[in-house]
Amino acid sequence: MARTGTEELRRRNRAALLDQLHRHGPQTRAELTEALGLNRSTIATLAVDLSESGHLQETTGRPTGSAGRPSTLVECVPEAVTVAAVEVRADRVRFGLVGLGGEVLERSEVVLVEGDDPVEAVKKLTGEAAAAVDAVAAVPGLVDSGIVAHSTELGWAGRDFAADLVRATGREWQVVDTATAAAVGEWSRGDAHEATRLLYLHGGRGLTAGLVVEGRAQRGGSIQLGHIVVEPGGRECACGLRGCLEAEMEAFGYAEDIEHATAAASMGDATARDGLRRSGEDLGRALGAVVTATGPDEILFGGWLRELYLSAAAPVRSAIAETTLPHLRSRLRLRTPVLGDEGALMGAAETGFAAALDQMC
Amino acid sequence: MARTGTEELRRRNRAALLDQLHRHGPQTRAELTEALGLNRSTIATLAVDLSESGHLQETTGRPTGSAGRPSTLVECVPEAVTVAAVEVRADRVRFGLVGLGGEVLERSEVVLVEGDDPVEAVKKLTGEAAAAVDAVAAVPGLVDSGIVAHSTELGWAGRDFAADLVRATGREWQVVDTATAAAVGEWSRGDAHEATRLLYLHGGRGLTAGLVVEGRAQRGGSIQLGHIVVEPGGRECACGLRGCLEAEMEAFGYAEDIEHATAAASMGDATARDGLRRSGEDLGRALGAVVTATGPDEILFGGWLRELYLSAAAPVRSAIAETTLPHLRSRLRLRTPVLGDEGALMGAAETGFAAALDQMC
Repeated sequence: MARTGTEELRRRNRAALLDQLHRHGPQTRAELTEALGLNRSTIATLAVDLSESGHLQETTGRPTGSAGRPSTLVECVPEAVTVAAVEVRADRVRFGLVGLGGEVLERSEVVLVEGDDPVEAVKKLTGEAAAAVDAVAAVPGLVDSGIVAHSTELGWAGRDFAADLVRATGREWQVVDTATAAAVGEWSRGDAHEATRLLYLHGGRGLTAGLVVEGRAQRGGSIQLGHIVVEPGGRECACGLRGCLEAEMEAFGYAEDIEHATAAASMGDATARDGLRRSGEDLGRALGAVVTATGPDEILFGGWLRELYLSAAAPVRSAIAETTLPHLRSRLRLRTPVLGDEGALMGAAETGFAAALDQMC
Repeated sequence: MARTGTEELRRRNRAALLDQLHRHGPQTRAELTEALGLNRSTIATLAVDLSESGHLQETTGRPTGSAGRPSTLVECVPEAVTVAAVEVRADRVRFGLVGLGGEVLERSEVVLVEGDDPVEAVKKLTGEAAAAVDAVAAVPGLVDSGIVAHSTELGWAGRDFAADLVRATGREWQVVDTATAAAVGEWSRGDAHEATRLLYLHGGRGLTAGLVVEGRAQRGGSIQLGHIVVEPGGRECACGLRGCLEAEMEAFGYAEDIEHATAAASMGDATARDGLRRSGEDLGRALGAVVTATGPDEILFGGWLRELYLSAAAPVRSAIAETTLPHLRSRLRLRTPVLGDEGALMGAAETGFAAALDQMC
């Protein structure tokens, strides 16, 4: 039993070291000693073990600024562990093969036309990714245990997408929602690392949101933002309810053309300006309820909601202020994501690495 | 290092054994072997260790039904570990000293009159509880890291209640919100153990809610249900916003008299009946947004919302159905709590035990 305990401890230490390098990039042994709270000889043993297994390499790195030899850096071998990530949209499927340390080693996409099944595109894109330790698909919608319960963008309700992918590709898949994946991506590879409770809003052909807590996806954190009812008894929504944000929000009607609308507004077009302002108010009111219910400290406006927010920040902020308690809004930062379209793919990959790094060593 | 690993393993096993008995009550050694996945000799060693330290006792228990000797039961010694739990209300502070296994060993309360500071009441009530390993206070409001950011019932905004309690009593306190505490209580000591994401609604002089995931309180899970805006630009609320559920909901005005209202409604009083129906609709609409944002699988109506729900279940359900997607409501159970007023006190105690059991061994 003592032996089992020690082996378990070594396994955890190896996983912790890989995780540290994967998240924070190349570091010296001294920095790793400090960061992991392990002693120098333990770090040395782990580094040798993991170099022999091909996961790490040690290279002569940056000059230290002081005299003497440049210090040796420990870094990941990207190809040693890879995760296949895909992002499914109505009009295309994007693929990235992401290596240890977060580098994108391969990238490709398949354009979909009406009637195409994304499963075929995923199969084609990931055919060469057999060595990937995990495969993760991001889908815009309400996702729960591999099942896409609702997706405005894809027109799915209750599709067991994980099972469909397993059948087509012969391997296991994790399915996450695009907004949650993008939140994980911005937290781990963007600049939202300070956020404890990060809410990412994704504007595609539907409006979704994802809440991650300290960088981790939450069961139940996949939020159908577009189906928060902002006008009880209001306009009929495609989902069957009335007064959903997606049905009421003016800008939603020209989501594909948001840049045109914001350009018109900035040229002084009163109708466009008014439409954006009202859309900002609708969005802000829906967010008021979401903020009250989930208490985020940062909200990122992604997809086309980025453009809407950039041209209607004032009405969005003022509608949030009218619908949330002072304590909740005093700590709330509103921003746009830095990774843009890459966020969901990076986050899907991180979701795979989180599971893989813990199990592999 | 092997030694450290083994000691750590023993510590964890002791904690797991105590936790098992604390949660599930007396069990035979064979049942413990099965439940914890440890072998018989490990269980035997742990049981002897923990009996010697005074945490457990072994007693001749229930007949097995088959012939032969009745089996020996392992059970907690309640007095070995105690947690002091208080529940603060506008009109009283209730205290319970809860022992290992969940038994309430002492119980008392202090009635507050206008102007009384609950801190003095807590000091008085817990004076005899010096041996308690942890002390937890449940407060109706939005609680974050010991600070009561907002409480309609107590009229507090940004009060560092944890610090006030430390100053008055000379010991550390955890502060949790009443709804979250009650959710933890119903999950661990009531009959809501099946719920993965349990939302407890607390009707006091304000309306609050608490979300617990697999029995555990979440940072950000303390929800100001009463300040979900159900009528944008509607009635002015004491919090400064307009159209909050607390301001709009008719029944909120006679919360203290809800039994009178439900009695009148059941006698055919049309005004009372209509008021309850409209209150149910308002509550249901606010819940629609909360359900969309947090995805619970069970909602418990506690405090005076229990009476409201029992007389207005149909409008509550129908308003939720009008404001949530089918997938979210298909898995949702609506119920009333079984522990009643005891829930918050039991849950506050469990919050203390969760931390204490992990650290003590």
